[in-house]
Amino acid sequence: MSDLENSITHVIEAYQAAVFNKDADAFMRLYDQEVRVFDAWGVWSYEGAATWREMVEGWFASLGTEVVKVNMDDVQTTGSQELAMVSAIVTYAGVSAEGEDLRAMQNRLTWVLKPEGDAWKIAHEHTSAPVGFNDAKAILQR
Amino acid sequence: MSDLENSITHVIEAYQAAVFNKDADAFMRLYDQEVRVFDAWGVWSYEGAATWREMVEGWFASLGTEVVKVNMDDVQTTGSQELAMVSAIVTYAGVSAEGEDLRAMQNRLTWVLKPEGDAWKIAHEHTSAPVGFNDAKAILQR
Repeated sequence: MSDLENSITHVIEAYQAAVFNKDADAFMRLYDQEVRVFDAWGVWSYEGAATWREMVEGWFASLGTEVVKVNMDDVQTTGSQELAMVSAIVTYAGVSAEGEDLRAMQNRLTWVLKPEGDAWKIAHEHTSAPVGFNDAKAILQR
Repeated sequence: MSDLENSITHVIEAYQAAVFNKDADAFMRLYDQEVRVFDAWGVWSYEGAATWREMVEGWFASLGTEVVKVNMDDVQTTGSQELAMVSAIVTYAGVSAEGEDLRAMQNRLTWVLKPEGDAWKIAHEHTSAPVGFNDAKAILQR
């Protein structure tokens, strides 16, 4: 693997761990202060880390005793020393405190990353589900 | 404006013109052969220019005598010599042959662009509408 692929694998693993542990501090360390997020749910745009953190804290709090396992498939990465991007199909799987699979939802994910010190930070995130041609409803499984 | 901003403005203007003119050849000249598109509608992923072209030809054919005016708001760009990205809110406005406004739909848009010769090509596109928390229906106006 190239250095870039290693770095991006590290970001993906840190994202998975932060979500699994519902650790908002660890989660937000992955993002640039000026991040713009186009999230799949309800809101057109989160501009800056503070508003994104509010969403994340609300999400983690809403989970109660459940945990969320994140899986990334069909990952494509490209980049240079100054800018990188990732696209993937991401699966968010809800698991009960007893380890029982409860539900799963899929999204398309795009990240644009910038180097900051010796780490890469997410400067832009875009997640979505395609919506049906006829009913405009989200298709939440590929 | 920087060279990069000039180049990206050129891509945006060429995209607007290609859609307005329903010109699939001009439209596809903006895309890399290996493009991955996460489109707002119906399909999880278009992989490569050939499948994306099919969608575009179908879209343009479906318009009949209508034309579509594209507007980009809240455009953010960043990049280096090797990779660039654009995020924006895009409005697709349907106009009749007589110039009457028929409908309008908004999307969030992310582009990742790569230099090819003296032009920038879209290597990744992600468009979407956020979906409602309760009904999972696309919200098509900001």
